[in-house]
Amino acid sequence: MAVPRISGELALIDRIRRRTEAQPSRALRLGIGDDCAILRVPRGQELVVTTDFSLEGRHFRRDWHTPQSIGHRTLARGLSDLAAMGATPLAAFLSLALPKSAATDTRFLDGFLEGLLTLAKLHNVPLAGGDTSESPSDAVLADIVLLGGTPTGQALRRSTGRPGDLLYVTGALGGAAAELQPLLATPPSEPRPLSPGPSPHYFPQPRLAVGQALLRRRLATAAMDLSDGLSTDLTHLCEASNVAAEIDETALPLHPLTQTLLPDATARLHAALHGGEDYELLFTARPGTKLPRSIAGVPITCIGRITDKLPRRPLLTLISTSGKSIPLKPQGWEHLR
Amino acid sequence: MAVPRISGELALIDRIRRRTEAQPSRALRLGIGDDCAILRVPRGQELVVTTDFSLEGRHFRRDWHTPQSIGHRTLARGLSDLAAMGATPLAAFLSLALPKSAATDTRFLDGFLEGLLTLAKLHNVPLAGGDTSESPSDAVLADIVLLGGTPTGQALRRSTGRPGDLLYVTGALGGAAAELQPLLATPPSEPRPLSPGPSPHYFPQPRLAVGQALLRRRLATAAMDLSDGLSTDLTHLCEASNVAAEIDETALPLHPLTQTLLPDATARLHAALHGGEDYELLFTARPGTKLPRSIAGVPITCIGRITDKLPRRPLLTLISTSGKSIPLKPQGWEHLR
Repeated sequence: MAVPRISGELALIDRIRRRTEAQPSRALRLGIGDDCAILRVPRGQELVVTTDFSLEGRHFRRDWHTPQSIGHRTLARGLSDLAAMGATPLAAFLSLALPKSAATDTRFLDGFLEGLLTLAKLHNVPLAGGDTSESPSDAVLADIVLLGGTPTGQALRRSTGRPGDLLYVTGALGGAAAELQPLLATPPSEPRPLSPGPSPHYFPQPRLAVGQALLRRRLATAAMDLSDGLSTDLTHLCEASNVAAEIDETALPLHPLTQTLLPDATARLHAALHGGEDYELLFTARPGTKLPRSIAGVPITCIGRITDKLPRRPLLTLISTSGKSIPLKPQGWEHLR
Repeated sequence: MAVPRISGELALIDRIRRRTEAQPSRALRLGIGDDCAILRVPRGQELVVTTDFSLEGRHFRRDWHTPQSIGHRTLARGLSDLAAMGATPLAAFLSLALPKSAATDTRFLDGFLEGLLTLAKLHNVPLAGGDTSESPSDAVLADIVLLGGTPTGQALRRSTGRPGDLLYVTGALGGAAAELQPLLATPPSEPRPLSPGPSPHYFPQPRLAVGQALLRRRLATAAMDLSDGLSTDLTHLCEASNVAAEIDETALPLHPLTQTLLPDATARLHAALHGGEDYELLFTARPGTKLPRSIAGVPITCIGRITDKLPRRPLLTLISTSGKSIPLKPQGWEHLR
């Protein structure tokens, strides 16, 4: 066993290290190269920490996603969790296991790092360490760790929603699910070249600036990110807060891609309610709180309200366009199964 | 894609959560259940962070190791990195992917958690979060993240050894490699029941108390842990510190198991020099520093000295029992290949 310090692995670490040495950061005192990295958490701040797997065949496929997209998505998953807490990123750590074929072919690694580090630079987060190994199978395995800071005692949580609060989302819903649809319908044999423009599935944008503004301006009573689909994530928020919720169908901000890529209104509604990986924020605010129409350029939409949790009443209710109350079950997608 | 919140996975998270809810910790403000965990780093301390993969087929085998041993070893890898910095553990995060077979058979998970949490309790480190997934192959995949604290500016490093320093190790060397020998010679079809008693391979003991004492009493000039084998790890220390080193063969503290499990003196020396996973500490101290014979019950042995790095001179030299200088190459083991 032993940490497998094969020459190939040392080369891998060196390759990562070379690309990360020039990262400026006040928090990071010592990066890649020792037994641990050393960080200084800013005075008056608490530390928030999240880890997220990105496993080939579960979270991405090399025949569907470019290395750049895989690297971007790996980091975005963690950054979105920080956004949900209203945190400012301090550092990322990457554990990466490559199968022999991908370890000797540096194109994958270089593209992966390019995707990951481009997003990291955008949000000013240094890659401070991690681990490398040869994968025990043909699957690329990544685990990303994100550390962030929030003013002590002020991190946004999912457990603090209250009956009477209004329910909001950032951006638009269903875009990632809509982009996934053609992949599921006609699985490609290799990743498509990406057309320029926003791509919620291939290059999701974590809502860090919105989360930080919600915290700083004390606008939200509770928050979480939309990674598993609105119906599933809102269920988690309701369970954690011990409340119920109503969603207004007419208020749902459908992503433009649901119009162009999905066949009908039923499919579009399904994508918005149950499509995962939008990486938008879901949050609650007191009814008297005045929310701006957008924060940091991202639209904010009121989509419903928090209600009392009552016995024999569904946790989630959808108010349809015709005004009918329909019980809503969590139906988050699991795309790659 | 989407985080696969299958009922089985939620059950897995619940199972972990139930076993971790009663963990007392001053640092941990919010544990498993939100988008991130929240921690408070003690005033006057810096944060040290390490991540380590434990991948089936690379770092362990379910037909060689019991679930308890796998869980223990997973955490020990990370704790040993904290020990090397002289840090006090604050929290652990576990990313765990199980193949379907192991996910439905709770015996593996329960044994794994028992091994991990027993060691965690011993060192007072709460399991504060992580991620779960189904493994894309038949391999169990784990990634452990450890956060620790050290007084600001005082973490032990591997880059600060100086010529003239004496070279020390904790405990004994080669024990893990000796225990691995019978496994490699006659691979078992299932894990052996473990006899009671210390077992450096199956249940390595990270040297946290020693590392903390070295830092607190300012005894060491540089330190790292022995995970890859003395020859490999000392090479890393020399490269990081820009120095060379000599090891006295007669001074090497051989583990008693090398006597009982290995055939001859050559094999024993090989295990001590190149056998990985001893998880002892390797450190340097000024020649005038008086080191106790043991710290926290762990023997401390001077095994050589740091010298100037000179062109055309080997980085590592072994002074044999007959007084001969032999160049020493890094030869860390990679057991499971």
